[in-house]
Amino acid sequence: MTVTAQQLEFIKDSIKSVQDYPKPGILFRDVTSLLEDPKAYALSIELLVARYADAGITKVVGTEARGFLFGAPVALGLNVGFVPVRKPRKLPRATISENYELEYGEDRLEIHVDAIKPGDKVLVVDDLLATGGTIEATVKLIRRLGGNVADAAFIINLFDLGGEQRLEQQGIHCYSLVSFPGH
Amino acid sequence: MTVTAQQLEFIKDSIKSVQDYPKPGILFRDVTSLLEDPKAYALSIELLVARYADAGITKVVGTEARGFLFGAPVALGLNVGFVPVRKPRKLPRATISENYELEYGEDRLEIHVDAIKPGDKVLVVDDLLATGGTIEATVKLIRRLGGNVADAAFIINLFDLGGEQRLEQQGIHCYSLVSFPGH
Repeated sequence: MTVTAQQLEFIKDSIKSVQDYPKPGILFRDVTSLLEDPKAYALSIELLVARYADAGITKVVGTEARGFLFGAPVALGLNVGFVPVRKPRKLPRATISENYELEYGEDRLEIHVDAIKPGDKVLVVDDLLATGGTIEATVKLIRRLGGNVADAAFIINLFDLGGEQRLEQQGIHCYSLVSFPGH
Repeated sequence: MTVTAQQLEFIKDSIKSVQDYPKPGILFRDVTSLLEDPKAYALSIELLVARYADAGITKVVGTEARGFLFGAPVALGLNVGFVPVRKPRKLPRATISENYELEYGEDRLEIHVDAIKPGDKVLVVDDLLATGGTIEATVKLIRRLGGNVADAAFIINLFDLGGEQRLEQQGIHCYSLVSFPGH
């Protein structure tokens, strides 16, 4: 499947920009407007599924909460299991965890220890790549369980926030459908 | 599409039960094991999509975070927009909110004011029906925006916790694929 410029423009146009959210001076890229447009939402999933259909992916991982909105349909499209990475104390079975830094303070992500098997070829899917902190923590969790991360795929890359460079330094290849400046 | 007892048994078997989570004495029904089984996950989505394919649904609403895992794929399958209901301060545009009670204290859910239009026929999808508090709050949000709630659909009904009765009293018809005792 060839991805056309028109398709990507259509997806980009469905993403609203919200001025001064979450604080003054920030232009927030709002993926909920894409979700509300069934053609744009379906196309974004279709393009990711087509890209990875022959990549031998065995699991898709998505991070709470917006990562669920894209990771889960991509897993269904690829006919592989979906593994949620969640905030602390949300997963009921045995977990491992990784801390990651926030703008102020830090938070923690968890994964079920039995969700990834050694040798799994894992696609990480999220809505948006900014500084890459949550995805770096997610990849650490997958690797600690013996999984190989094939790619990290995003709908949106805020290309000037350094997320892609940071993840590439960890050997994580990134792919995103559309890009916006983050500043 | 006729739903067979074998299909429902297959879905039910994919749901692990976790003893003493989140506290001693509780047998927790863990939908993450269903997500990890691509056949069971796809079948659960397929059955919900088939049930509502001719119901004239115009929007699917799912509540953060596990509601995203089922609501979003059902919206894609029905070719309608997906509307997320989220915890406070997660949605970037103008919102309305509803409080709901937790076991200790209360929490609040929000929806974008422009996400539901008067006359929308809305399907609410969630993973699990327990006491029905979050779904009742979700339905109030939809109705305040002029939407009609067609049904609330669940993968799991914890049938002895009164959620279905509570929601039916509010005029909300419930449908669930499988049932377990909640005690």
